[in-house]
Amino acid sequence: MDVQQIRRDIHQHPELGFTEFRTASIVVEKLQSFGFDVMYGKDVMDESACRGMPPKYEIEEAYHVALNEQADAEIIKHMEGGFTGVIGKMSGNKQGSTVAFRFDMDALPIIEAEDEGHVPFREDFHSLHKGKMHACGHDGHTAIGLKLAETLKDEDFAGTLLLIFQPAEEGGRGASSIAANGVLDNIDKLYCMHLGLDAPQGEVWCGTDGWLATTKINSTFHGVSSHAGVAPEKGKNALVGAATALLNIHALPRYSDGKTRVNVGALNGGTATNIIPDKATMVIETRSDKAEINEDLEDRVKNIVEHSAKMHDLDYEIEIVGEGTTIQCDESLINTAFEEAEELNLFSSVKRMGRATGSEDASILIKRVQEYGGEGTYMLIGTDLPAPHHHPAFDINEKSLHDAVKLLNRIATKELIDK
Amino acid sequence: MDVQQIRRDIHQHPELGFTEFRTASIVVEKLQSFGFDVMYGKDVMDESACRGMPPKYEIEEAYHVALNEQADAEIIKHMEGGFTGVIGKMSGNKQGSTVAFRFDMDALPIIEAEDEGHVPFREDFHSLHKGKMHACGHDGHTAIGLKLAETLKDEDFAGTLLLIFQPAEEGGRGASSIAANGVLDNIDKLYCMHLGLDAPQGEVWCGTDGWLATTKINSTFHGVSSHAGVAPEKGKNALVGAATALLNIHALPRYSDGKTRVNVGALNGGTATNIIPDKATMVIETRSDKAEINEDLEDRVKNIVEHSAKMHDLDYEIEIVGEGTTIQCDESLINTAFEEAEELNLFSSVKRMGRATGSEDASILIKRVQEYGGEGTYMLIGTDLPAPHHHPAFDINEKSLHDAVKLLNRIATKELIDK
Amino acid sequence: MDVQQIRRDIHQHPELGFTEFRTASIVVEKLQSFGFDVMYGKDVMDESACRGMPPKYEIEEAYHVALNEQADAEIIKHMEGGFTGVIGKMSGNKQGSTVAFRFDMDALPIIEAEDEGHVPFREDFHSLHKGKMHACGHDGHTAIGLKLAETLKDEDFAGTLLLIFQPAEEGGRGASSIAANGVLDNIDKLYCMHLGLDAPQGEVWCGTDGWLATTKINSTFHGVSSHAGVAPEKGKNALVGAATALLNIHALPRYSDGKTRVNVGALNGGTATNIIPDKATMVIETRSDKAEINEDLEDRVKNIVEHSAKMHDLDYEIEIVGEGTTIQCDESLINTAFEEAEELNLFSSVKRMGRATGSEDASILIKRVQEYGGEGTYMLIGTDLPAPHHHPAFDINEKSLHDAVKLLNRIATKELIDK
Amino acid sequence: MDVQQIRRDIHQHPELGFTEFRTASIVVEKLQSFGFDVMYGKDVMDESACRGMPPKYEIEEAYHVALNEQADAEIIKHMEGGFTGVIGKMSGNKQGSTVAFRFDMDALPIIEAEDEGHVPFREDFHSLHKGKMHACGHDGHTAIGLKLAETLKDEDFAGTLLLIFQPAEEGGRGASSIAANGVLDNIDKLYCMHLGLDAPQGEVWCGTDGWLATTKINSTFHGVSSHAGVAPEKGKNALVGAATALLNIHALPRYSDGKTRVNVGALNGGTATNIIPDKATMVIETRSDKAEINEDLEDRVKNIVEHSAKMHDLDYEIEIVGEGTTIQCDESLINTAFEEAEELNLFSSVKRMGRATGSEDASILIKRVQEYGGEGTYMLIGTDLPAPHHHPAFDINEKSLHDAVKLLNRIATKELIDK
Repeated sequence: MDVQQIRRDIHQHPELGFTEFRTASIVVEKLQSFGFDVMYGKDVMDESACRGMPPKYEIEEAYHVALNEQADAEIIKHMEGGFTGVIGKMSGNKQGSTVAFRFDMDALPIIEAEDEGHVPFREDFHSLHKGKMHACGHDGHTAIGLKLAETLKDEDFAGTLLLIFQPAEEGGRGASSIAANGVLDNIDKLYCMHLGLDAPQGEVWCGTDGWLATTKINSTFHGVSSHAGVAPEKGKNALVGAATALLNIHALPRYSDGKTRVNVGALNGGTATNIIPDKATMVIETRSDKAEINEDLEDRVKNIVEHSAKMHDLDYEIEIVGEGTTIQCDESLINTAFEEAEELNLFSSVKRMGRATGSEDASILIKRVQEYGGEGTYMLIGTDLPAPHHHPAFDINEKSLHDAVKLLNRIATKELIDK
Repeated sequence: MDVQQIRRDIHQHPELGFTEFRTASIVVEKLQSFGFDVMYGKDVMDESACRGMPPKYEIEEAYHVALNEQADAEIIKHMEGGFTGVIGKMSGNKQGSTVAFRFDMDALPIIEAEDEGHVPFREDFHSLHKGKMHACGHDGHTAIGLKLAETLKDEDFAGTLLLIFQPAEEGGRGASSIAANGVLDNIDKLYCMHLGLDAPQGEVWCGTDGWLATTKINSTFHGVSSHAGVAPEKGKNALVGAATALLNIHALPRYSDGKTRVNVGALNGGTATNIIPDKATMVIETRSDKAEINEDLEDRVKNIVEHSAKMHDLDYEIEIVGEGTTIQCDESLINTAFEEAEELNLFSSVKRMGRATGSEDASILIKRVQEYGGEGTYMLIGTDLPAPHHHPAFDINEKSLHDAVKLLNRIATKELIDK
Repeated sequence: MDVQQIRRDIHQHPELGFTEFRTASIVVEKLQSFGFDVMYGKDVMDESACRGMPPKYEIEEAYHVALNEQADAEIIKHMEGGFTGVIGKMSGNKQGSTVAFRFDMDALPIIEAEDEGHVPFREDFHSLHKGKMHACGHDGHTAIGLKLAETLKDEDFAGTLLLIFQPAEEGGRGASSIAANGVLDNIDKLYCMHLGLDAPQGEVWCGTDGWLATTKINSTFHGVSSHAGVAPEKGKNALVGAATALLNIHALPRYSDGKTRVNVGALNGGTATNIIPDKATMVIETRSDKAEINEDLEDRVKNIVEHSAKMHDLDYEIEIVGEGTTIQCDESLINTAFEEAEELNLFSSVKRMGRATGSEDASILIKRVQEYGGEGTYMLIGTDLPAPHHHPAFDINEKSLHDAVKLLNRIATKELIDK
Repeated sequence: MDVQQIRRDIHQHPELGFTEFRTASIVVEKLQSFGFDVMYGKDVMDESACRGMPPKYEIEEAYHVALNEQADAEIIKHMEGGFTGVIGKMSGNKQGSTVAFRFDMDALPIIEAEDEGHVPFREDFHSLHKGKMHACGHDGHTAIGLKLAETLKDEDFAGTLLLIFQPAEEGGRGASSIAANGVLDNIDKLYCMHLGLDAPQGEVWCGTDGWLATTKINSTFHGVSSHAGVAPEKGKNALVGAATALLNIHALPRYSDGKTRVNVGALNGGTATNIIPDKATMVIETRSDKAEINEDLEDRVKNIVEHSAKMHDLDYEIEIVGEGTTIQCDESLINTAFEEAEELNLFSSVKRMGRATGSEDASILIKRVQEYGGEGTYMLIGTDLPAPHHHPAFDINEKSLHDAVKLLNRIATKELIDK
């Protein structure tokens, strides 16, 4: 199996979060073919902890697209409704730790560049689905995970290897359902990784901090419409409530002991000039470099939404549609990664720690593992970026795929075989 | 007893709402001297229904001023705390209706004009208490009531005469406590009157409409202060809550079936630039030409205050500090007043009805009487106004005092004697 | 020509404001066939005074639909871009006044009811274009106008007859362009009419008042997007500006000398939780029963939009997308209509005047005619309404079509022939 | 001269910012008696750069209090209007640098504790002026400066010694006027100091960072009052403008590259429930650990105030009433202070640098000196604090007065004599 070829296949067939039916189908098939014990669908995901599920019709449409593009009907039947997470498990004959690696699989709603300067276009593996694109490297992550599986398939482990293929990382939506499922609770060591981000080609960062805890919130205000000329007092104006919430959310205080961010990213409400608006929706996010500050902000935002609604006798709904937390990488995993990366002699620079920007929902998985007594780290494997993440011209240097597989293989070998 | 002289004495000694100790003391003494049965203090006022009582120290200060200016110590002792209402009652030997006349006694916090063009100054009976002034004619009303008492003191009634001297009409604060007391509940006919307002000298309006129902509300937001530089997140910002309430109160809808008014008349909060404000107070009013719309507005304002506070985890207080309602004058009283005024042949114009502007808390008394099966009307007796009501140069034409006494005497005679 | 049959044909082919290509094509053809001198397109409409033109692609799509449905290609070529107004003119050999009748032609974006209780469905002439519907009776108005033309085609007038077929009455969008064109400036008498509204079947109201002046405003706020986590300060937040405008527009004062209405009917802005919103749009309306108050409100709204934008360093656009004013019907036209309606002996009740609710852009035409020395009136011809105007089950009693034609014919005869 | 005795005298006679007439009079007299060349009043202060001058009557009242308490009438005559800054200058016969030390003199509007636990009360030197108090240690600073002068009065310098006694440090009001005057522009080295703050007894911090740049802003909104019931539309509501500004100021964005703070510390407006408010005032502050971010915030606040006013057709005023900036201490001065403090062997701990919290207007002086090619540092000399700065029970350990004098004397000696 060629890691580059499989990355290109996935790149060509991008699937948005919770609709990675074709991708997950391939993952299941490959893992099974390598002898892994494979769980997927609701066996690895808690339905109630899925954040920001797409509308049903979008999931169904994607499902049919996947069927048309050679997804295995039998397999994805068990993923119906958006449960596209997959975990491959392989236990050895010897006792030992449970060591896991995590990969994400989802694409983004971006129209991919179509010009000769963009390698996927020039070499003819760009997105077949206009408006969807692997613009963050998750195609590479999935390919790395599968190739890693292949390289380890004939080993006899002292312990257990878990390969976690997570849906819907974008927006912080997929990790919570896997964490809540409990399937991670026996993990001793969890290695997470990302290509690129703040790490340049040739570098490996064995641990990272700086990740912002974040909560993504959808809120809806329900009022009563009435004719703005004939009986304005009969209406309950959802937009007045929403505008009040918006200003007050932005007016939340700065915190003296940590960074904060708040944003109302979108507000939509009302229909026509002459109708008192009966509905308004807002999407909101909070962030902080301290998890407890982010929780406090989230509580304050919810409180503002609630009382902005009640102030005008409106009903309201609040839904958490995404989340991430901070990451505290464990020293021993950083050490292992560092030593193996150094010995590998492939990288121009191996750093123990680096500072990331942004948010990442692997944080939810690491936190869960740590709460249950395990350890975790989040690594960056540098790659050339012709354009930033989430850009139509985003791409990776495929050399980093090979390097990543080699590094992860060494770590797994160290943790599970060379015992 | 000379109605002009007593009006001038009261004019010289203006007392604000709920502190009319000297005025009420005179009223008690005179009514008793005329043989009336006189009730006052909490006997005629319900403490819990007093609206917008002044701070204790203001009441006490006024109490001592009154003592210094010949108020009867024994009498006003029973008015301590601001219970300055007085009702004189005289029953005849014959059966008949209970007929009441209502007069108000309070002055305004206005600095009286001191120039030769202003009669009270020129003729030396202007306010002895700078910053307080009878600028609405209530000095005249009280004088009319007392003179009316004198003219009727030796009559034998078929029924009962009540003369109600009410405190604190300004701001709609005093009437509610008299209504709630129940002392009016047996009244069959209630005549209320005002000098001037929309009626010019020589006119009598025997009924009025157009009065706006109104509610005056004090609200206070209590937060927590903190240093704005060192720990802004530790504060709970009372001013952010209050500003939110202010905008949303003004943004209340127009009503299709009646006039509305809302106003936040004052907002005060915070102390220094570097302190998160822990307290803010707002004074608010609502008005409508429909009592039920005003009630709806009042409810909405309270709701906005409550949730603007809760939105920022603030405590809050809401106090009704004044109120008035609409007035529906009863036909039979209008008729009686009209006929007597016509026959009196003193007035250049006698109108059955006229349209008033503004609010008046006699409305609370009339409503109570009507709820208990009685009838009421609100009359205007025109007078020359050298300056508008509530103006430093306000004055009345004292001729109207005599005319008013004559008219009310005829009405009382018609209702209680010529039976 | 059967008025009912032509109404049903138009009903089946509803066209939204400024896209009445097929309808206008029929109007042109019929009027020409009756011998009228017909002007249309930009000959009767001023481009710069069109309010709330639809997007170009909508106009083009409707244009092609019309071509497919037998609109005359030659005719509608002169209406390209949305200039669907038509005026038919016929002058007699004798001198006399210029007398005009006005009809509107546009449908509404409403999905028509499809059940047996709905006559157009039961009798198979309901809308062929799902989502568009004649739910206000303009199909009837156009049919009446055409039938009126037919009944008068062979007369010799003392003066000139104008039949005005106006586009885009809904939203107050079409009249201004006809008024601004100047084509109405020689009119001596302008009769406007509507089926139904506040008038029940069998009634005619020869004049109406109560129409609210109104302005419909689109405003757009343009900011700068930035990443809400990485660089919030680099953004210029269009939604904060828009929410500020929204609250302040609703907080505009009540007016003591007239009714007012304000509404922000819709607000849409932003894209994703993690992006500072760079664009927000609002649709706003003001209304008053006094034209000058509505103008004042409009000025205040514009001022609020401007400074809410500038407050956050945003760019902004303000576009008037609809308007109407009050109507003062002229006595002599009311008289003529009243006398003719009385003599016609068709109606159960003929009223000189009635009070309408809502807004109507014929007001713009009447005002223009009056400013140039002419007279106007706005009449209602009652009809049974199984459901309110703008409702999916709206329909008319087609008997009123015949009655209306007879009444307008008599008025025209009186004004132009029986001289 | 005893440093403790003079500190206690000043403590007993606290004077608020820009009214330090008695204090400054003593400073002038003492410095002159020591042979300094003394400048004061407008000779050392630029009138236009005074921030947040008290109202005239407060200055005049304090002036007369000072005269009653032995201020020299001749001297303070030159300080009339609030120009209480004093600079003493002594030049030696030898060439050399200009070295300055800065002390502040103002007290706070705080009611001093009166209990036995509070040393100034127990030892009978507490404030004679209830409501004013030296609760920040500036009494000690002034005493240190005078004693330092005495210790150096007979030296022959290589260069020039400047002793700067600044008014109105509290609120960041006094430094700007001295900076703007230009009197500092030849200074080569400026040493500033404070007792206590973050430094405990026995410690010296030779340089500090962490100071927040800050701007204190007063803004006033001027509208038009009208009767809220009779003609609300005639008013221009100053409170609606101010509330809009308040919410939008708090809603200013976080900055990714520095700390920010914003606060509206107080808002006061309006008079009575029934009057549209015609005036509102707000006090605002911004802060940041980056001077350029604070400037950007200040600009944004001003912009919000301006357009919140214009939005409602209000007039407005914006006044900068206080300011401070960040401090970058120069290495060579830190070194000198560090070496002298170490050699003095008085302190338990000598730190090169420490991190301060809060804002300090000596920053304005240091910045000015640095802009003109000089160097500066801000030192803390630790002292026991029985209660925090700005607390009614604040006090210092007077031992630190002696230590401070010794340290500054050594620094001055090193800089100006031991050359």
